[in-house]
Amino acid sequence: MKKIKVGIIGATGYAGVELVRLLSLHPQTQLTALSSVSYEGKKISEVYPNLKCICDDTLQNEDIIDKCDVIFTSLPHGLSEKFAGKCLAKGVKMIDLGADFRLDSAEEYTKWYGKKYEDEALHTKSVYCIPELHRANYTGQPIIGNPGCYPTSIALGLAPAIKLAVDNTIVIDSKSGVTGAGRGLADNTHYPNCNEAFAPYKVASHRHTPEIEQTLSKLCGKKVNVTFVPHLLPVNRGIVSTIYFNVNKPVTVKELREIYADFYKNEKFVRVLELGEVANLRNVKYSNYCDISLHFDEHTNRAIVVSTIDNMVKGAAGQAIQNMNIMFGLEEASGLDYIPPAF
Amino acid sequence: MKKIKVGIIGATGYAGVELVRLLSLHPQTQLTALSSVSYEGKKISEVYPNLKCICDDTLQNEDIIDKCDVIFTSLPHGLSEKFAGKCLAKGVKMIDLGADFRLDSAEEYTKWYGKKYEDEALHTKSVYCIPELHRANYTGQPIIGNPGCYPTSIALGLAPAIKLAVDNTIVIDSKSGVTGAGRGLADNTHYPNCNEAFAPYKVASHRHTPEIEQTLSKLCGKKVNVTFVPHLLPVNRGIVSTIYFNVNKPVTVKELREIYADFYKNEKFVRVLELGEVANLRNVKYSNYCDISLHFDEHTNRAIVVSTIDNMVKGAAGQAIQNMNIMFGLEEASGLDYIPPAF
Amino acid sequence: MKKIKVGIIGATGYAGVELVRLLSLHPQTQLTALSSVSYEGKKISEVYPNLKCICDDTLQNEDIIDKCDVIFTSLPHGLSEKFAGKCLAKGVKMIDLGADFRLDSAEEYTKWYGKKYEDEALHTKSVYCIPELHRANYTGQPIIGNPGCYPTSIALGLAPAIKLAVDNTIVIDSKSGVTGAGRGLADNTHYPNCNEAFAPYKVASHRHTPEIEQTLSKLCGKKVNVTFVPHLLPVNRGIVSTIYFNVNKPVTVKELREIYADFYKNEKFVRVLELGEVANLRNVKYSNYCDISLHFDEHTNRAIVVSTIDNMVKGAAGQAIQNMNIMFGLEEASGLDYIPPAF
Amino acid sequence: MKKIKVGIIGATGYAGVELVRLLSLHPQTQLTALSSVSYEGKKISEVYPNLKCICDDTLQNEDIIDKCDVIFTSLPHGLSEKFAGKCLAKGVKMIDLGADFRLDSAEEYTKWYGKKYEDEALHTKSVYCIPELHRANYTGQPIIGNPGCYPTSIALGLAPAIKLAVDNTIVIDSKSGVTGAGRGLADNTHYPNCNEAFAPYKVASHRHTPEIEQTLSKLCGKKVNVTFVPHLLPVNRGIVSTIYFNVNKPVTVKELREIYADFYKNEKFVRVLELGEVANLRNVKYSNYCDISLHFDEHTNRAIVVSTIDNMVKGAAGQAIQNMNIMFGLEEASGLDYIPPAF
Repeated sequence: MKKIKVGIIGATGYAGVELVRLLSLHPQTQLTALSSVSYEGKKISEVYPNLKCICDDTLQNEDIIDKCDVIFTSLPHGLSEKFAGKCLAKGVKMIDLGADFRLDSAEEYTKWYGKKYEDEALHTKSVYCIPELHRANYTGQPIIGNPGCYPTSIALGLAPAIKLAVDNTIVIDSKSGVTGAGRGLADNTHYPNCNEAFAPYKVASHRHTPEIEQTLSKLCGKKVNVTFVPHLLPVNRGIVSTIYFNVNKPVTVKELREIYADFYKNEKFVRVLELGEVANLRNVKYSNYCDISLHFDEHTNRAIVVSTIDNMVKGAAGQAIQNMNIMFGLEEASGLDYIPPAF
Repeated sequence: MKKIKVGIIGATGYAGVELVRLLSLHPQTQLTALSSVSYEGKKISEVYPNLKCICDDTLQNEDIIDKCDVIFTSLPHGLSEKFAGKCLAKGVKMIDLGADFRLDSAEEYTKWYGKKYEDEALHTKSVYCIPELHRANYTGQPIIGNPGCYPTSIALGLAPAIKLAVDNTIVIDSKSGVTGAGRGLADNTHYPNCNEAFAPYKVASHRHTPEIEQTLSKLCGKKVNVTFVPHLLPVNRGIVSTIYFNVNKPVTVKELREIYADFYKNEKFVRVLELGEVANLRNVKYSNYCDISLHFDEHTNRAIVVSTIDNMVKGAAGQAIQNMNIMFGLEEASGLDYIPPAF
Repeated sequence: MKKIKVGIIGATGYAGVELVRLLSLHPQTQLTALSSVSYEGKKISEVYPNLKCICDDTLQNEDIIDKCDVIFTSLPHGLSEKFAGKCLAKGVKMIDLGADFRLDSAEEYTKWYGKKYEDEALHTKSVYCIPELHRANYTGQPIIGNPGCYPTSIALGLAPAIKLAVDNTIVIDSKSGVTGAGRGLADNTHYPNCNEAFAPYKVASHRHTPEIEQTLSKLCGKKVNVTFVPHLLPVNRGIVSTIYFNVNKPVTVKELREIYADFYKNEKFVRVLELGEVANLRNVKYSNYCDISLHFDEHTNRAIVVSTIDNMVKGAAGQAIQNMNIMFGLEEASGLDYIPPAF
Repeated sequence: MKKIKVGIIGATGYAGVELVRLLSLHPQTQLTALSSVSYEGKKISEVYPNLKCICDDTLQNEDIIDKCDVIFTSLPHGLSEKFAGKCLAKGVKMIDLGADFRLDSAEEYTKWYGKKYEDEALHTKSVYCIPELHRANYTGQPIIGNPGCYPTSIALGLAPAIKLAVDNTIVIDSKSGVTGAGRGLADNTHYPNCNEAFAPYKVASHRHTPEIEQTLSKLCGKKVNVTFVPHLLPVNRGIVSTIYFNVNKPVTVKELREIYADFYKNEKFVRVLELGEVANLRNVKYSNYCDISLHFDEHTNRAIVVSTIDNMVKGAAGQAIQNMNIMFGLEEASGLDYIPPAF
């Protein structure tokens, strides 16, 4: 079989270089072109010496679409539309790891990102896809909007039980490793500022909120509002979302777990833990797994779901590859057999 | 003025050795006797070499009460009552950093700790005291039950607004540094198991729950139930409690902050941050401060309070010294002028 | 091709579980039996939940040799000989990750490990093998003594230049992540004791010293003595050895680098960095690579070599698999295509 | 007694804010003026929220000399001379925490720092002072050059034995916490780049080398050359220097330790550990102590000294205050009673 020619625009961002790492071992793809405006002309292994002798490709400017069957864009919001238009024109598929193809509503996009969609028609040709929840929605669209990291952990953690949740009782307390903040230097990611430190940020105002609510509302069949508070965790990788909600009918924790186990019974990448176990990011890091543990506070009638993923794999590059596999009719798990290390 | 003669029973536990550190510089006390059953006969500076040349006292057996004006007990639950009885008999004051003098209800104690109070009368002679909330309750009792670390961060974070909270909407997501788990070796505190890891533990079943609810119920004048989930944070020190609740009357975040600022206006150790600031454990570590920031999620009508302390200082040894100062009529902040370092 | 049936004795130690992780994806092996005396009857994924749904094999007692083509032993020193004898009797190959088949000299073994070889003849049937240096020594021996982690980083870092070193000028300052201390709970690996801490240990008295000197002496053709000081580094994985020696003839740093580049020109797993680059453990972790950078202090005529590996991969399980590949005539890099992540 | 009026120029750098923390509790000083060109007009507690309610002083421009009895300058090299001239003109004392008053030789300064002394005469009025080694050199000079962090750990670690060291055998392998790199954002101090990472930097080319050799040469009475390699350690604070040298006459490790114990017998801030103990940065952090442990490798005739300090206290702000105490005839340890915490 001819290998799929893959290009990455934004290859030196954190999601970009993670794509390089994962795709280098994908059996059905060929890394064809890497683009980086900041480092054009340099080898990627000069920017990321971990890749030395593994991928020494030279970083190119943005004109790489022609050479590829599929383009991954990993760019700040507002920059992907331009490439989507070009890909569409040339019949090249595109998977966007940024925020530009996640929200259905142009108004919501403008409200949260402060920009307008420049070409609204483009967005009718894309589909948002967390594979475990939305793979049926993929019907050949040329563009896939790859989900955000927090929304992935949360949607997978709430989907099986969303109809059990009492309106307006959902509280989501998420914690993310520092790679979630990306490669750019900033005060809050300067080592002495985040080591031995911990705090929330963008309290109840993070841009992933509308994406979370969009997914949950569709699953629930009515508007779902959530309180979402992210925190910066002094680890490199991983997200843990602790999700709280009251239940609208009597349910035991055992029944709750069965609902989840049943919902995900055919899913390779979602592991519903046994009762008594607790999801821990150490068990998923460097892998495409999402671990979910179920708990129940009887004295307040509140369910508690703990959902954890590696923000750079299931929360970004891994899920994007999973989406690529869907797009090209490959085995969905192809190239994603990463085993989380014990330490 | 004659210095207060202080003894510590359980001096080699984490709270014990933190007491040694803080009391060594207290201007009105004299460290008179340190007891440790595990290390009797050794110098404390052999067990904790940071104390070399600072406190080289030899660790003694438990018979130190006679020599002291006040005894701090820092022991696993169930072991303090014995010493309380002896202190009482000899007219020596006692401050217990363990769990034995925190709960009013013997039934609750038995339910959560699996033991009975052996001498219920003793408990009528003790008082539970978070100074900022309960100092008026101290009326000469010979025993003070020093509060738990999580309950301190939570009670201070909720006290000013507890009457604003809609019943059964309080969710508390707390995160604690690893010293909270104490000195004993355990799998979950083995470095490779908690470094680059994160998870909750004792989900909705932590023993601090009844203590939290006891304090909040008294403040509120009716039974308050909360969902409380602690997490283990890969840092040495500090607790962050992110507290969520719906409000029972319209309130802006500005008004909310004013309520807190007013409530704590005379408190040295509680800093109510400005709107827009976020409480971060790095700003309180190694100090007796509690930092509180206020937030509001308008679209769900939910207040969010972030409260952070150093679990070993304001959450244990520092607060115990604050209580000792109250007990002996000293300036409440005496010996607690620790400035949190910037890094 | 029929897959090689692999058994692991000591599967729940750190090197053991790392073998499980790496061998699970090896294209030519089949994990046939896992043994653990501490956890017999449990699934390995109960002990290491990262393996859930990936390897749920039940841990067995030690009688697994019959079922296997090759046994990896990963045990405290003194326990492997017994299994070596059994393997030999049954024609099963064995790779020992412990210390029992590393030293040629029974006297040295006794001096450093405080035990005697029980069956000296066994040791004549084994070979010590860092593949890049010793693969020619493998001539069908049934037992391979897999090298220690520190000795691997050091031997690879010194081999090309050992004849350039002035006698008795070699100083090796090594730093290892905490997994190097293994799975057993200990005071010095309790999180609050090693986080935000750093110190050497076993100064000039570590058991890897004779193994280091044995390898270097053979390479040099005369007895080589080194000063070796290991340090405990607050990271999970990785070793950095900073190696100092005076040179016995004029050499520029450029020439020094060429000597190394030439020596390792056909080696996949050793990357000799460009001048100006510095070897960093972050670029090799989770992989079988050894990165080496060369430096020279002209004003003291001293060469400085920085050599870094992942202690659990190239320093243990990865190198053991490399040795297994040699033993079975497979492609030496088979199953070891792990790409070090950027973060 | 009238308090000494202290000003800090460069108050928002890491050494500057550490001075603020330590001086806030000094019994004989009054923080009179804080200057920061980057943050003029802001409160220092807005830049460093740990100082909220403790020091809310407004940051000023550089014209603060008139108001003060002593100025601490904590600035990048090349910027302190200007202030030294002004201080001298106005009879204000100055302690420079930067590099400009450390080297005797203008040539060496130019070679390593790429700048010339603008006013050589100024440098005849300053004195370099590690108090334990040089306090006798202070004879009223108006300017003190405060030593660098690495040189402090190394000079204290070598001073007692420098005459025992064989020429050209000294190798110094130092490891520093990330605050040593300062407050400025940089790739190598971006959290995901230095967490779970470790490497040397500026191998045998660090600017502290001439300062180290200057001090050792004076102590030894002849030119001493050393190989010095610093490493970046993933902790916030602390330096560990592992120092190797061959001895020029027979000495046991016990004798070696006695030489050190005797040399430092009257020094409060240097703790010579017992044989068998190992200096660990965790025991000195947040304090002005230097811990030293002695070791000997008999089979190579090499002494090994481990010396550890807190780079921000004994390596910067604490030692600067110690020097201020000398300058003003105060008790040398005044205001420096910081006890290193156990964790």
